[in-house]
Amino acid sequence: MSGNTLGTIFKVTTFGESHGEGIGAIIDGCPPGVVIMESDFNHDIDRRKTGKTKFTSQRKEADKVEILSGVFEGKTTGTPLTLYVKNTNQKSKDYGEIREKFRPGHADYTYFKKYGVRDYRGGGRSSARETVIRVAVGVLAKKILVNKFGLCVRGYVHQIGPITTEKKNEDVDWEVVESNAFFFPEKEKIESIEQYFHKLNKDGDSIGSGITLVASGVPVGLGDPVFDRIESRLGAAMLSIPACKGVEFGEGFEAIERKGSEHRDEMTSNGFETNHAGGMLGGITSGQDVVLRIAMKPTSSILVKGQTIDTHNNETEIVTKGRHDPCVGIRATPIAEAMMALVIMDHALRHRAQNIDVDSGTPIIPAEQP
Amino acid sequence: MSGNTLGTIFKVTTFGESHGEGIGAIIDGCPPGVVIMESDFNHDIDRRKTGKTKFTSQRKEADKVEILSGVFEGKTTGTPLTLYVKNTNQKSKDYGEIREKFRPGHADYTYFKKYGVRDYRGGGRSSARETVIRVAVGVLAKKILVNKFGLCVRGYVHQIGPITTEKKNEDVDWEVVESNAFFFPEKEKIESIEQYFHKLNKDGDSIGSGITLVASGVPVGLGDPVFDRIESRLGAAMLSIPACKGVEFGEGFEAIERKGSEHRDEMTSNGFETNHAGGMLGGITSGQDVVLRIAMKPTSSILVKGQTIDTHNNETEIVTKGRHDPCVGIRATPIAEAMMALVIMDHALRHRAQNIDVDSGTPIIPAEQP
Amino acid sequence: MSGNTLGTIFKVTTFGESHGEGIGAIIDGCPPGVVIMESDFNHDIDRRKTGKTKFTSQRKEADKVEILSGVFEGKTTGTPLTLYVKNTNQKSKDYGEIREKFRPGHADYTYFKKYGVRDYRGGGRSSARETVIRVAVGVLAKKILVNKFGLCVRGYVHQIGPITTEKKNEDVDWEVVESNAFFFPEKEKIESIEQYFHKLNKDGDSIGSGITLVASGVPVGLGDPVFDRIESRLGAAMLSIPACKGVEFGEGFEAIERKGSEHRDEMTSNGFETNHAGGMLGGITSGQDVVLRIAMKPTSSILVKGQTIDTHNNETEIVTKGRHDPCVGIRATPIAEAMMALVIMDHALRHRAQNIDVDSGTPIIPAEQP
Amino acid sequence: MSGNTLGTIFKVTTFGESHGEGIGAIIDGCPPGVVIMESDFNHDIDRRKTGKTKFTSQRKEADKVEILSGVFEGKTTGTPLTLYVKNTNQKSKDYGEIREKFRPGHADYTYFKKYGVRDYRGGGRSSARETVIRVAVGVLAKKILVNKFGLCVRGYVHQIGPITTEKKNEDVDWEVVESNAFFFPEKEKIESIEQYFHKLNKDGDSIGSGITLVASGVPVGLGDPVFDRIESRLGAAMLSIPACKGVEFGEGFEAIERKGSEHRDEMTSNGFETNHAGGMLGGITSGQDVVLRIAMKPTSSILVKGQTIDTHNNETEIVTKGRHDPCVGIRATPIAEAMMALVIMDHALRHRAQNIDVDSGTPIIPAEQP
Repeated sequence: MSGNTLGTIFKVTTFGESHGEGIGAIIDGCPPGVVIMESDFNHDIDRRKTGKTKFTSQRKEADKVEILSGVFEGKTTGTPLTLYVKNTNQKSKDYGEIREKFRPGHADYTYFKKYGVRDYRGGGRSSARETVIRVAVGVLAKKILVNKFGLCVRGYVHQIGPITTEKKNEDVDWEVVESNAFFFPEKEKIESIEQYFHKLNKDGDSIGSGITLVASGVPVGLGDPVFDRIESRLGAAMLSIPACKGVEFGEGFEAIERKGSEHRDEMTSNGFETNHAGGMLGGITSGQDVVLRIAMKPTSSILVKGQTIDTHNNETEIVTKGRHDPCVGIRATPIAEAMMALVIMDHALRHRAQNIDVDSGTPIIPAEQP
Repeated sequence: MSGNTLGTIFKVTTFGESHGEGIGAIIDGCPPGVVIMESDFNHDIDRRKTGKTKFTSQRKEADKVEILSGVFEGKTTGTPLTLYVKNTNQKSKDYGEIREKFRPGHADYTYFKKYGVRDYRGGGRSSARETVIRVAVGVLAKKILVNKFGLCVRGYVHQIGPITTEKKNEDVDWEVVESNAFFFPEKEKIESIEQYFHKLNKDGDSIGSGITLVASGVPVGLGDPVFDRIESRLGAAMLSIPACKGVEFGEGFEAIERKGSEHRDEMTSNGFETNHAGGMLGGITSGQDVVLRIAMKPTSSILVKGQTIDTHNNETEIVTKGRHDPCVGIRATPIAEAMMALVIMDHALRHRAQNIDVDSGTPIIPAEQP
Repeated sequence: MSGNTLGTIFKVTTFGESHGEGIGAIIDGCPPGVVIMESDFNHDIDRRKTGKTKFTSQRKEADKVEILSGVFEGKTTGTPLTLYVKNTNQKSKDYGEIREKFRPGHADYTYFKKYGVRDYRGGGRSSARETVIRVAVGVLAKKILVNKFGLCVRGYVHQIGPITTEKKNEDVDWEVVESNAFFFPEKEKIESIEQYFHKLNKDGDSIGSGITLVASGVPVGLGDPVFDRIESRLGAAMLSIPACKGVEFGEGFEAIERKGSEHRDEMTSNGFETNHAGGMLGGITSGQDVVLRIAMKPTSSILVKGQTIDTHNNETEIVTKGRHDPCVGIRATPIAEAMMALVIMDHALRHRAQNIDVDSGTPIIPAEQP
Repeated sequence: MSGNTLGTIFKVTTFGESHGEGIGAIIDGCPPGVVIMESDFNHDIDRRKTGKTKFTSQRKEADKVEILSGVFEGKTTGTPLTLYVKNTNQKSKDYGEIREKFRPGHADYTYFKKYGVRDYRGGGRSSARETVIRVAVGVLAKKILVNKFGLCVRGYVHQIGPITTEKKNEDVDWEVVESNAFFFPEKEKIESIEQYFHKLNKDGDSIGSGITLVASGVPVGLGDPVFDRIESRLGAAMLSIPACKGVEFGEGFEAIERKGSEHRDEMTSNGFETNHAGGMLGGITSGQDVVLRIAMKPTSSILVKGQTIDTHNNETEIVTKGRHDPCVGIRATPIAEAMMALVIMDHALRHRAQNIDVDSGTPIIPAEQP
């Protein structure tokens, strides 16, 4: 069945494969009147771009977002917006080896078994290439969220293998995050990360990472119990990012060792005293920052030889050559931001839809959020 | 907007509040011909039941599942199945204190702000009471999964505060899990858990916990990239359980510190050598056991006095009296099993819908039912 | 798959069978704060009631709508509202004949072939009995529409077999419609209808009918091209009424013989000059009255003997005894009103969700419609 | 909100405007392994093409369907299929008049009022141009339906203004239908239709029409009561075709004047004796031909001067110049076929999803794909 659509009112459907014509997305339900032009997408597309530094994938992607529909005279029209990025760099090459062999850690085996056919030229639909268009759609959502709410979604890498930041969310300097190739919040550790990556590259290996996402300026009231709780929707969105293996909110897994008297966030007339919960209660945003963390597994495409089988169940070995990230999590930072923005955008419109003040005519929540 | 439905083909909508008439669910899309009777629900309802031991909530719930529609002569008819559990134990009492005060860690504040009205008699719709009907629906899903796949969904508590099991998944003896009040897999530690709970009860405090879920017998091919990856759907389902603050698959957050050469699961002609990924690749089940873990926060209703505000933003204090769990995670074990079963059930039907052998003469649907 | 849900934001799922425990509905997405009580439903339930006159079915249905969830202290809470009507009149009787035989014109054969099992005690899920709860849900939708828009949905029977009203929509006196048993707008013809029905009853036969629906006070802008055009959504809703075989908007089928110069509705600064289109252009309401007509087939349960087969494909004959309507279309009037109200309600909330003025903060369409 | 998606398992989302870059569609949920190539689309695209004869619009559209994703080595992969038709013929011209004026009978006014912005270069999203991609998607659905069921969807024009065919469905010679420019089933009347069109063209006027659709080879069991009855889903699909103002099934509106003893279809051991119902009972296909008729209004773009207003509510007149159809219904024949095929395709997959033989040992899904 179809699983390529995210959202319920602000509804995004993506299409395309790593070695096909291109990658695109339809946004159905975008409000009319949003000023948007093709150059708006460049900044975030660049942030995601492989080849940004020598430590992320060296592939040069000339990713240019085209608007195929839904915009007239620079404004969205309320009809389906189509964004498209042509694939320009899929060289015709000999796919002989991966054509028959299942790369360990990749979706080769499961796609082949599920669908009976497989685009063996690369990851096909399962490739991280698909996320380029999510970043583009995220730009649109972020723009609306900033304009309507002053709501800002940002992410940083808090851990790369053995190297963890000591910074707390509230102490992160976002300019530092954006000024290094690793979206890492501590200047002092950049050099040790670089050294760690040199070693990884030499070994032909890769490493996992952890990303923290923070949405600030979130109004109280977003999220729809019981199955569309804000953490359910955000969790699903995060876990749709290739290589994401876990998600936690606020204190997350640390809550297992917390007592009730420690974990609950108490209130004064100035608001919440703490944010152990990550900005949500009962599946609804509390008006605090929404905070979550995700775990990214290490890239499976490495130069270290691995054991596998081919399509005829013969045992064999494989080395995944080519241009790949030693730490896929770095590039995932703008992707995760985009996913978070899409979920919040959708819930903001959902909230607006249901909450009308039936008796007085005055909306419970004003049309314009503060 | 509406958020009370889970699933796309096997579609479950729940209704009801903790202090209302009852809790119910409609299952729309259940296959016809499933043999089911009211007594089938008792076992899992009992597993969830508060009052099972002195360490879970002492409330006596006489939870009896009624079938209001969709079953005729003991078999499902293919039309909407309605399950219903009357609330029998909501005493009329003075709600004065919680009527005006927001209990810390509860959804009182966010529901009030979102909807403008709030059922102050208890958690209302946000109460864990709602999960009783999820367990009932899970019984139906589990039954079909066992009969059609030999697919079995089971859970155990791997951590309660400071006490963690040493058992690995493959070494868990499920009879041990079912034979103690904590769903804990190690007999040897039961006594120390009991002592820990005595201390908690004396302090009027609560503790977090971690649950492991394992689905065995899962066929390869379930899950629909890119947004309905099996981990997205399972993750959303888990995070819809009240008090769940995190979910991870396979090695989960530990993958942050893993190298690619360590984390990827290699294959031989006998199948996968390891299961670091948790039984899924590219969002599709691999035929291995699906393994996930969730983090449950400590119960917020405790006897320790907490600071809060009332509906007029005046500062005040509150103690949540009454019958409550010191560790809500224990009861969550059968709930999480139910959620896992529902997602797998839905994906099995989705998979069946899309995957038809186009070239063969086999019709999509049989000429007629047997 | 599941087909028992209508709507996307104001989402209604019905359950129950003619001879089961009862008939119910969940409304998920109802705005909070709507004042509603059980007695509000009586008026429309009575309008639908069989036994209203000797010319509709003589069955006495004591249909009492209970609110099982979603209302607290007389107001909707924003959580799922459950309405329920117990079946009180299903006598235990000998179903021997219809147990094995397929009644012509009924769903007996198709349900049996589709699901393999069939509730042979009556129509089961296919029975018009299910519509009792649609009428109840319609009451809720109508109430909100009146309060927020001054929007009024009304229906009348314009044709019963050979007897057709000469009245045009604009000349209909709604008090006349409500003052006779046939929802017919012409007092003068009531007697001839009664005579026609006496003859039908004597013959044990039934007759088709046509109903006109008019929604006045509809704001401009409802409907979402291209697949959720207002006529698509209204059409689907009408055709979900048992026995409905056709739907047309404005001039409908007469448009086949119209020229473009005759059919298009011209505008002056006072608005549209005519309403050939039925109040919609390009799938979006125009601010005019929305006008549609539906065709209701004659009741299939009649005393005239018919040829059929049994479940073993043996040829046989059948007479459908019992209490039935000679003209099922009459009772369909309040049902069709309910369906129209549900679709308009849903589109009003959809419209509100998407249309935010991104740049100015001022909504394009004010929260309260004029 | 989003309304550009049709279907639930075989899910189609279209995008694009008449004067934008192009028109496209994503099919999400297409079974893998379907052999399809770009030339497969030509036949039906040509059948829809304006300029086929002098009596349909003279615009030359070089409509070439490109496959942007979802096909690898000539077969669908199970991932989103994207079809795209570039707009090649939108001349830059002076839109001055229609920029400010609302064309009567068009969606200009309602789009402007709903969205606040309007693509004034033509119909934009409301243009019949969008239907080119529906026809393309229909080709894919038809191909699967023929291969898997021998199911065939066909349409013919039964009425053009005053000229009506005498042929009954069962007597239609489909080769005659395909051999004339009007999809009309009677050779003898072609000349009079041509004469009628000459007169229309001379007058600058247009005419309505009626189309009959027949699906043969439909298995029993498709359709999902109560809201996704086959007539609800087919009705919605038909009414999503621009200019469609009515839909009826089987005898349709004539049923109003039928008695129950006349209308119900009796059965013998050889099947149904008649097909007054149009091939469905209780919302489920009966195994007979599915028969429906639609009413198409006359084209609103005519050379006859009409009264209207401009965007500032000033009264004015307008003549819609350019290349237009005197009878838009003719081109709608392949469009309506496509819509019917899409609905049946979706219901076939839905039926397959829900109907598993629970008791037998047959697995829901094969262990693996062939």
